[in-house]
Amino acid sequence: MDIQQSIKPYVIGLDLGGTNAVFGIVDSHGYIKATTAIKTQVYKSAEDFVKSATDSLQIIIEQVGGISKIKGMGIGAPNGNFYSGTIERAPNISWGKGVVPLADMFAQAIGIPVALTNDANAAALGEMTYGVAKGMKNFIMLTLGTGVGSGIVVNGQLVYGSDGFAGELGHVIMVREGGRLCGCGRHGCLEAYCSATGVARTAREMLANTNEPSILREMNAEDITSLDISIAAGKGDKMAKDIFEFTGKMLGQACADFATFSSPEAFVFFGGLVKAGELIMDPIRRAYDESVLPIFQGKAKFLVSSLDGASAAVLGASAIGWDINQQ
Amino acid sequence: MDIQQSIKPYVIGLDLGGTNAVFGIVDSHGYIKATTAIKTQVYKSAEDFVKSATDSLQIIIEQVGGISKIKGMGIGAPNGNFYSGTIERAPNISWGKGVVPLADMFAQAIGIPVALTNDANAAALGEMTYGVAKGMKNFIMLTLGTGVGSGIVVNGQLVYGSDGFAGELGHVIMVREGGRLCGCGRHGCLEAYCSATGVARTAREMLANTNEPSILREMNAEDITSLDISIAAGKGDKMAKDIFEFTGKMLGQACADFATFSSPEAFVFFGGLVKAGELIMDPIRRAYDESVLPIFQGKAKFLVSSLDGASAAVLGASAIGWDINQQ
Repeated sequence: MDIQQSIKPYVIGLDLGGTNAVFGIVDSHGYIKATTAIKTQVYKSAEDFVKSATDSLQIIIEQVGGISKIKGMGIGAPNGNFYSGTIERAPNISWGKGVVPLADMFAQAIGIPVALTNDANAAALGEMTYGVAKGMKNFIMLTLGTGVGSGIVVNGQLVYGSDGFAGELGHVIMVREGGRLCGCGRHGCLEAYCSATGVARTAREMLANTNEPSILREMNAEDITSLDISIAAGKGDKMAKDIFEFTGKMLGQACADFATFSSPEAFVFFGGLVKAGELIMDPIRRAYDESVLPIFQGKAKFLVSSLDGASAAVLGASAIGWDINQQ
Repeated sequence: MDIQQSIKPYVIGLDLGGTNAVFGIVDSHGYIKATTAIKTQVYKSAEDFVKSATDSLQIIIEQVGGISKIKGMGIGAPNGNFYSGTIERAPNISWGKGVVPLADMFAQAIGIPVALTNDANAAALGEMTYGVAKGMKNFIMLTLGTGVGSGIVVNGQLVYGSDGFAGELGHVIMVREGGRLCGCGRHGCLEAYCSATGVARTAREMLANTNEPSILREMNAEDITSLDISIAAGKGDKMAKDIFEFTGKMLGQACADFATFSSPEAFVFFGGLVKAGELIMDPIRRAYDESVLPIFQGKAKFLVSSLDGASAAVLGASAIGWDINQQ
């Protein structure tokens, strides 16, 4: 924490979701001092959205002592590009179909430096700044939600790559022959198997392809969620446990490949699927130990995010705000 | 180039191979001003090796104006660890079976800062300092020789990871079911298919599994090298071309996975296999374009090392010498 931060003790985080845009003012320990939110989709244009957001922000900024107390603002947004400060063709935001220079727009509206990145990168920064990856220089964050996102930290810096879009580990190919169709249009991606939707698909396949008894058969197969599978496994249901075993094995094997890249100190997991706890973490660790290159065996930690799920996205976004280069 | 470098215009590079230890004194443009070599294996201990090396080095150091002209020394060595400056259980060096603090030993013997890393990382630094990756902040070097080595540069820095052993992309798993046994003891590694020995194995498999005519059948199958396949393909031999097609496809698919990690500006290839030119580079590029995530399509360059094969290893090693922190 440098002198700059002790003079300006707060950053603003914006978690831009498809439904809500949630703002928090955060201190260096990760305490949210004030928070507000607006609906994301009720605006005709990005300008209208930023205007409404700024009006709401002013109120909480005053609550913490005014804009002079705030070092910067970070935005975690779908398809956010750190280098350009834009969101590009965000699929779930009505005013975000083109290329929207959201960081610049907020910087001009509020008068502080603003940077943005995608959700998974923000999550990684959040863990590094406030969470279980505090002090780590090399780790990989994997978010297991609707998709599989990733944020990679190397030498203490987030990996953005040549174009700002690095860290798409949900799209490494895990099944090269006859793999599942992924949302990206290709086949066999990690995301098609190990996201919450991928796990539900594994459940439907197992139910359809076997006659094994399972309490999951009492449900409409199309309605089964990863939470249902988690609950069933908690009750001792063998098929539900097998689903986590299958998913964890693939994640562990993927992590073994990732280790050859950056040999991280830890893999940090976050998202709906991680709520299954050891049901998923234990097979991940086992598959990793069985398949990783001998030189990396027994080195990497497998950690679950320590940030509160509800506020993690805002904390992650806010973490970007500490690192912005001041003019 | 900072003032330090203009005062000390040279670095020493040591390419430590299983047969020869080759030294070069190199300027900032990559010109080798003086060179010498000793046998690697004729010494009973690391101390004896360093003593003999230092004696030979003194002669070429005097040739360029003395030790005051030299900024530092870099060593490229099998199993070299940048963080510790040690070589660890180097399989092909008789006095290198344990953990040898080679960087410290040379630093004390010559009185300048010394650092070391493995061969592929040194090659990446060489390309970034003197070669086709000059000025690049994000690229991946792949060396296709006896094995498949890699050096990964992110944000202008080599990726060493938490333990100094990052960048082992020859050991990502490309074939998860029934893959070839790799030298690392696991199955299906990229190296088992796309190293020079992997390519020779592909030739033997194709010869054994088909009746297709090929001029490769005129040779003893066990003696076929990647150079023979290259020559046969140059004569229009279909099987030889198919071997490069198979190898290039796997490399292109592997690079597509690597792009999801660090979205590099370029992939730079070096090593015996690359001498086949477009026979291997063309299928690599095609497979990459066909299989990479849409967001990365058409972005990465596929380059061949511009450094002279004979001196590339010394140049790569020397590149480490520019970056050493002076006490």
